[in-house]
This record gives sequence, C-alpha cells and structure tokens, in this order.
Amino acid sequence: MTTNILGITMGCPVGIGPEIILRFLAEDRGEGDFLPVVLGDPGVLARCRDELGLSGEIVSWQAGDPVRPNVVNVLPLSNLGSQLAWGKPDATTGRAMGGYIESGVRLIRQGFLAGMVTCPITKTALNLGGYPYPGHTEMLADLCGGGDFAMMLAGGRLRVTLVTIHVGLAQVPSLLTAAKVARLIEITGQALHRDFGIATPRLAVAALNPHAGEAGMFGDEEERVIVPGIALAAARGWSAAGPFPPDTVFHQAAAGKFDAVVCMYHDQGLIPFKLLHFADGVNVTLGLPIVRTSVDHGTAYDIAGRGVASPSSLAAAFELAGEIVINRHQAATVG
Amino acid sequence: MTTNILGITMGCPVGIGPEIILRFLAEDRGEGDFLPVVLGDPGVLARCRDELGLSGEIVSWQAGDPVRPNVVNVLPLSNLGSQLAWGKPDATTGRAMGGYIESGVRLIRQGFLAGMVTCPITKTALNLGGYPYPGHTEMLADLCGGGDFAMMLAGGRLRVTLVTIHVGLAQVPSLLTAAKVARLIEITGQALHRDFGIATPRLAVAALNPHAGEAGMFGDEEERVIVPGIALAAARGWSAAGPFPPDTVFHQAAAGKFDAVVCMYHDQGLIPFKLLHFADGVNVTLGLPIVRTSVDHGTAYDIAGRGVASPSSLAAAFELAGEIVINRHQAATVG
Repeated sequence: MTTNILGITMGCPVGIGPEIILRFLAEDRGEGDFLPVVLGDPGVLARCRDELGLSGEIVSWQAGDPVRPNVVNVLPLSNLGSQLAWGKPDATTGRAMGGYIESGVRLIRQGFLAGMVTCPITKTALNLGGYPYPGHTEMLADLCGGGDFAMMLAGGRLRVTLVTIHVGLAQVPSLLTAAKVARLIEITGQALHRDFGIATPRLAVAALNPHAGEAGMFGDEEERVIVPGIALAAARGWSAAGPFPPDTVFHQAAAGKFDAVVCMYHDQGLIPFKLLHFADGVNVTLGLPIVRTSVDHGTAYDIAGRGVASPSSLAAAFELAGEIVINRHQAATVG
Repeated sequence: MTTNILGITMGCPVGIGPEIILRFLAEDRGEGDFLPVVLGDPGVLARCRDELGLSGEIVSWQAGDPVRPNVVNVLPLSNLGSQLAWGKPDATTGRAMGGYIESGVRLIRQGFLAGMVTCPITKTALNLGGYPYPGHTEMLADLCGGGDFAMMLAGGRLRVTLVTIHVGLAQVPSLLTAAKVARLIEITGQALHRDFGIATPRLAVAALNPHAGEAGMFGDEEERVIVPGIALAAARGWSAAGPFPPDTVFHQAAAGKFDAVVCMYHDQGLIPFKLLHFADGVNVTLGLPIVRTSVDHGTAYDIAGRGVASPSSLAAAFELAGEIVINRHQAATVG
C-alpha cells in the first residue's frame, strides 16, 4: 500500500454525482484510514454547492500533492460549470466523464491513488462522449487490459454475484452454461478471499427454477447446467453449496450462513439485495487488477440539481474500497 | 357472522401438522375473537403430545358443540395413533388427510365454522389417499364448485400474488397473457377490498424483465403483455400501477406505498416475501366463497416427530383467517 488516497470519479456532470460527492465530503467521517480526492470538475462542484445551498471549500489537487483536510480536493479535469444543464448530457459532458475514469485508472497504476470509487454514468452519455462502452465495467476492463470480470453487489447483510445481467428473462435459461457458473463461483470465491479477507469463503449457488426444479418437475437446468458448474468449480478448488431453492437461500445468507450467493439472473440477486440494502448497497467489480467500487444507483437525471440525493451508497462504496485495499495489501504481504 | 369458530385441519398426520397445532394451542393467545377446533385425529395428537413432551388435554368436539376453553377441541375424523410412522405417508394417512379438508368445507357451508386454516399436505400423500388433486387449492376449488382462484402470500410488511406459479422459469414468458395479468389484478384488488378491508387498494404490478425491460432493450413482455393487462383491468374498474422494475417495487411495497404486488413468477414474489416473512408468512386462497388461510410451509417430513417445528406461520394464518371473516362480514353488512 503506497498511498492512502482514494479517487472518487464525479460521474456524469449533469447527474447526481456532484451533489452526492459534496454531501459525502461534508459528513463527519471520523478518523478514516483513507483520504478522498475528486476526479472531476471544480466549477461544476462549486455551482452545485451554491445552487443547492451545500458547503465545502473546493481546492485544486494534483497527483503527488498531499490531501488537505476538511476541504474538497479536486483534480481539475474539465471546466463545464458555466454551461451546465442538469439532467441533459451531451458530447461535452460525456467526454469529460470518460476522462475522469481514464485519469482514475492511470493514477492508480502510477501509484498516486490506492483505488477508485465511481459515481454514476449512463451508456448514452458515455457513447455521446465518444467512448464506445456499455458501461463502467467494460470500460475499466479495457483500460486494465481485458480479462475475466464480474459484478458483485455487496452490503453488510448480503453479497450477490450474477451469471447473467442485462438480458430479458426469456433469454436467461439459454445463456446459462456450466462453464459460466463455474467461472463465477471461482471469481466470487477469489474475491471473497483476496478482497474481503475471508479465509474460507462459504458460497451458495441459487437454483434457476422454483423449489430448485423439484426433481425436474419445474425445469431441468439445475441438473443439466448448475450442478455440473458447481462440480467444475470444485474440481478447480472452489467449493460452493447448492443449487438451493431461490426463495430461501437469501434468507439463509442474510442470517449469516453464506458469504455470498451466486445468482443466475439480474432480479434473482437484485430483488433481495435491494430489499436489504436499498440505500447502502455497493457495486464492486471483481477480477480487476485495480480496486474499484461504485454506488449501486444511476445518474438519477430526474432529481439532478434538486437537492434531494442521498450520499449513503457513495459513503458505503468509499468505505468498502478502503477495506479492499487493506485486505489486498495484507494478502500480498502475508502471501 | 353466525359463528366464531375456525377449523384447523390437521394436514398430513405424519408431517409436522400435529406438532404445530399442539404448540399453537398451548400458546397464550390472549382474548382472541375466534375459537379453534381441530379437524383431525385425537389419537395422533395424543401420541405427538406424549412423544414430544408437549401439553394439552384433548377433548372431542362435534359440530354444534361449544368450544371448551384451554383444551384441544378435536373433531375426531380418523384413528391412526397406534400405527403412525412419522414422515411416511401412505394410503390410510392420505385418505384421512383428505377427509379433514372435506369436513372443513362442509362445516363451513353448514354454518358450524366461520372458516378454515389448513396445515400442510403433500400432493403425493393426497394422491395415495385417492384424491386426484395437485394440492389444497385445486381440491378446495372443486369442493366449492369451481371458479377463478389465486394464491396470495400475506404478511405484515408485504403481500404478493402470482400470475404463474409452479413452472420452470423458461416457460414463464410464454405463459403470460394480458388476460391473466388483468384477471390477477382484479382478484387481488377484490380480495384486498373484501377480505383485507382496504377501501381503495393500491396495487403494484412487477415487470418481468430487469429495469422493466428498459424500453425494450431487455425484453418486450412489458409493452406486449403487462401494460395491456393493466389497461384491461383498469377498464373493468381495478386500477394498478406499473409495470415497475422488479428490484425496487418490493422495497416500495414494504415501505407502505402499495398494499400488494402482482408478480409474474414464483420466485419474483417468493424471494422478497420469504426474506421479510420467513417465519410468519400466510398463504391465502383468493376468490373462494369460503374463508381459507394456510401455513406457508410444507409437511417437513425430515423433521416430523422431532419436536423442533415452529407454530409461528400457523399462528399468523389463524389470526388472518379471523380478520378475513370479520372484514367479509362487515363488507356484507355495510354493502
């Protein structure tokens, strides 16, 4: 661990990113191990602060500078304060937003930042800005040189990972393969071990069908795909229990029986996760060489500039990024 | 309301029904409006009590008798105490179990009972006993002369109803129709009004796909099936909001924004329901002329006779049955 500074990318300048950053930095966070710097736009932050009646002295930070206490340290990467229209992304805001992410990755790789916490973007804004990615994860994967990545939603009571994500429910069964299930078990297990500091991760795998198919009466994907996937992962040294009936496994995990649940589709994991962690959930990209966490909500254009956004997910994402940095450092030191 | 007696069917004699009944009746329920009688087997209850070290004097009750306080009032319908093997249903136990249900319906229709609360059965045991039904709901529907029924899972924080139930996930999209969605909105709305005493029910309809399909990017069932279903129900006078992204609608409903969520498939409703109501959920059959609630768990043959079963779902089902009787009575009196 060469630095204790975490970068917070400002996300879409016309979304709620600037507001939640200012609110988060104004909170009394006590004696944290990590210091925040914003990768973004000082003018946008100043305008957001003034329009919404928020507080915070905004100061310029450059790579290598110490972080000044009790102010908003910003690496200035764009200058859009005068021309801002809340909720209306365009090519300029999209280009700026992509630049915050690029700078974050570069500064981590150069050792100036320990990791990054990202504020929300949209695919539309990213593409308008000339970045041909569907979202953060794919862009970060590309900037880090490719590889095998996965998304985890993490909270104090529940962690879930997803075999399929943004596809229609009708496509889910045909997209599942034993290899994908095995791969996700492995990535999830590795992340729990390396990033979350869990010596022997206890993983549960959710079934696809009600009652886990009830011996084939309600679907055969359990026997045909999921059980072989679990066996494949076990052969590689990553054990996971299941497949479990989806309607009881999350209760068991939240009660402390499992460290994470490997889910077959978006809502299978997101429904229980958002029920337990509506305000304090964190989106973590697993498998990246760099540490990256994110808020688990979107740009919320409908409420941008209105002064009603909550920084609770950003606060949780910042805290978790710090924990992952420490856990990786300890794993590297011990190992 | 001609009587304040509720029948509790004993369910499968070799499951956990006898145990949870004895535990429930031994609880101090305070000054309840409703009195319980068991439709079952005095010998099985006595044996269960003695083997598990439970308490309760078992007395015979016949239709028209007053209910005696602080004892277990049983309508004797079978005599299997001496030949019982926990967890091993056969033709004799199946036949007896079906008889408890038949008696319950008959006594309600004759006015001796206000409603019934059912303990768990299995399809296997029912069929062994010569009753060709997949479960309670279908059998009750047949005994009540057919009609349009639906299953609701009800708890203090969340109520859900299901458009599709026991089918594989791959079949769900093709089974959804606008007519089925409309019908379920209507049945759910009617039940909330008549059975739950809610003057103007606030119904939410869950989407099928993640993010409610995100304008067709992740599936088109929202526009093709669910929106037309909501419109069809509205044309018949039953309004419902949605379709909502499934990962946020349950949080909103649990926060009090909706009285029930109409769900597209089993786990969409059961995952959030069991997370909030693992121990105190109630299964209610909507659309029946008689009042019937049920525990929301199974026969649990694996723990039958072991003394570890919890009566909490039965207690909640008994309480809700009483509330429904009162609400229907008031609706009939006012109307």
